[in-house]
Amino acid sequence: MKKATHQATKEHNTTLVLKTIYHNDQISRADIARMTSLTRTTVSEIVTELMGLGLVRETGFGPATIGKPPIHVDFDAGARQLICVDLGEEEFHGALVNLRGDVLQRHSLPLGDRKGEAALQLAHRLVEGLWAQVTAPILGIGIGTPGPVDPDKGIIRQAVNRDWTNLDLKEIFGARFNVPIHIANDSHVAALAECAYGGHGRTPSLVLIKVGEGIGSGIVLGGNLHTGEGFSAGEVGHLCVERGGLPCTCGNHGCLETVASTPSLLRLVRAEAERAPDSPFGRALAARGASLELLREFNESGDPQARALVHDLGTHLGVVAASLAGVLNIHKIVLSGMPTLFGEPLLEAMRTEIRARVLPEMARETQVCFSAIGSEIVIQGACALVLRKELNLP
Amino acid sequence: MKKATHQATKEHNTTLVLKTIYHNDQISRADIARMTSLTRTTVSEIVTELMGLGLVRETGFGPATIGKPPIHVDFDAGARQLICVDLGEEEFHGALVNLRGDVLQRHSLPLGDRKGEAALQLAHRLVEGLWAQVTAPILGIGIGTPGPVDPDKGIIRQAVNRDWTNLDLKEIFGARFNVPIHIANDSHVAALAECAYGGHGRTPSLVLIKVGEGIGSGIVLGGNLHTGEGFSAGEVGHLCVERGGLPCTCGNHGCLETVASTPSLLRLVRAEAERAPDSPFGRALAARGASLELLREFNESGDPQARALVHDLGTHLGVVAASLAGVLNIHKIVLSGMPTLFGEPLLEAMRTEIRARVLPEMARETQVCFSAIGSEIVIQGACALVLRKELNLP
Ligand SMILES: [Zn+2]
Ligand SMILES: [Zn+2]
Repeated sequence: MKKATHQATKEHNTTLVLKTIYHNDQISRADIARMTSLTRTTVSEIVTELMGLGLVRETGFGPATIGKPPIHVDFDAGARQLICVDLGEEEFHGALVNLRGDVLQRHSLPLGDRKGEAALQLAHRLVEGLWAQVTAPILGIGIGTPGPVDPDKGIIRQAVNRDWTNLDLKEIFGARFNVPIHIANDSHVAALAECAYGGHGRTPSLVLIKVGEGIGSGIVLGGNLHTGEGFSAGEVGHLCVERGGLPCTCGNHGCLETVASTPSLLRLVRAEAERAPDSPFGRALAARGASLELLREFNESGDPQARALVHDLGTHLGVVAASLAGVLNIHKIVLSGMPTLFGEPLLEAMRTEIRARVLPEMARETQVCFSAIGSEIVIQGACALVLRKELNLP
Repeated sequence: MKKATHQATKEHNTTLVLKTIYHNDQISRADIARMTSLTRTTVSEIVTELMGLGLVRETGFGPATIGKPPIHVDFDAGARQLICVDLGEEEFHGALVNLRGDVLQRHSLPLGDRKGEAALQLAHRLVEGLWAQVTAPILGIGIGTPGPVDPDKGIIRQAVNRDWTNLDLKEIFGARFNVPIHIANDSHVAALAECAYGGHGRTPSLVLIKVGEGIGSGIVLGGNLHTGEGFSAGEVGHLCVERGGLPCTCGNHGCLETVASTPSLLRLVRAEAERAPDSPFGRALAARGASLELLREFNESGDPQARALVHDLGTHLGVVAASLAGVLNIHKIVLSGMPTLFGEPLLEAMRTEIRARVLPEMARETQVCFSAIGSEIVIQGACALVLRKELNLP
């Protein structure tokens, strides 16, 4: 019992020192001691240990106030590399990143119609392609994938579109690459990215809604991911927004995905152009084909048909955002992916729907905004996942 | 740092021993040592300390296997008393309970049309009435109240129907009674009661939906209450279930409370009887007046009008239960209060609605059931709140 406690204290202190160095450029041992309330001796011991691991380096002298100038130490982002992959889109995409999540190399392989074993082989090849470019010791491999994932065991419970059931990816990749493997649902890791790199402070509460081929969300409560008892928390793509609506791949009707995923939106764009083929929007569509880019342009120029489509999209996203806000009483709802193309008109429609659906005070306190992280949010999240599990960072 | 850690270890061990005695009748020090992995010496020291506090007592000898028979110790539920009050209904209701939550005395005072200071005075009188009957040292006063409550500060943020805003009840009652005061939202404490006394194991995840004059819920994740950033998590009474529905006291339209609270249900019962005054249900209503009891009887006997009303109630509750299940991926949804009158027909309607609104796997794994705790669930929850805060029990 005592030994376990001592060990836990030591780990806790090491994490505390590492975090302090990670969050502060050029810091002296004395500054660290002051900021952490640890003794100078403890800090020096831990810094020596972290320098031994290569995670921390001395970078020169700070200004002397009295006596000899203090030596500054810094976090060495290049000391380890991470392989991060996103298996959630139609192209498997991966990157080699450093300890700050800066991308060093990218690699992509189109999925085509691969499923099951063939899709797994493709993921394997993607990681091997990145592995060949590694130039520092590997901290671990981080993977974001569709479907519910048991993040402790590293097993993908079910990824319908990939035809994977109870796939023990941690075991398979661990045996092959012999480094730590961390796996989680792609929307869940996207939420970790937003939490780590979105500028929301150190222990934020937020929901990240990710919209693309499918729709999912990740819930972060006080800095920790809420995965749910079946690892499916935040599974908003299949919440019903239109009772008796269109059939969905899941077997139900009127799920959010049937009206607000990228393929559904493109279907609605085409339907709108067919309804009014002689409008400017209809004519542009006939000439250029349906695309998100076309809708973005016409939405920005204020075209009423495009605005109506964006309004409906925002309303549907607002229905589930209201459920999230009302159930969780979380103040930050962040959108990533396709909706970020449609700016304020989309956010306004969402806010209107939230106001109509939850307690006025709660609606007032709920912010809806776009993620600034961009299209590699799952890669960044896979990086955050590995950093969190291996080094308790950030 | 070291001192703090030592103190934390000691508290942790004391809690561990106390919990072990609380959950096991008639246990020896050797058994406790075996079950907790603490040394015999540590256990003996802690037991001596707990006996000094009166929380634990020796109760006799167990059977000897070799050598002298072991002395059994037991948790003394009568060593302290708690005053627990429910300020959420039309009658303020309180009880004096022992450390196991057994009710020793009850006291109620009708609220009438009191608001603000007058309602506060009534709560005061209720506690004083119970205080006069105390026969053991008081562990603390636990209070469940409507509206969002900051449970750490003990401040009621806003209880609209009571006309209380930022009411520092902890300060007010603490100054008067000079014992620990713990306050939380009434639905949140009801969830704590379900967690402590509902037979769901030691660290359950569940949602408790409480339906009466109003509707609220409490979310327990891994044994801990999720209060939300504005202390309004689980505020499902004002989630919209019927866009553009009836106006609600909150200013929105079609909130769950407009169709599923007790007053709303009675309104719907009367409307149904007016629609068909010559049906058996209509005639009974004309003769006996609208009541929950009448609806319960007719629902049980399979009357189609009563069944249709219960079905609609279940459907509306199912809409928010689906949001809870889909967002949180929690497997247990427990109903308390008025819906418990309507048995399987109500649960079936809820389950049907949940199946139509969330991913089939998630719906399959979600259990919907009635709480067994009964009408004093807030009293029991206030007891659980004080036990948790003061003794880390159960
Ligand atoms: Zn679906
Ligand atoms: Zn309302």
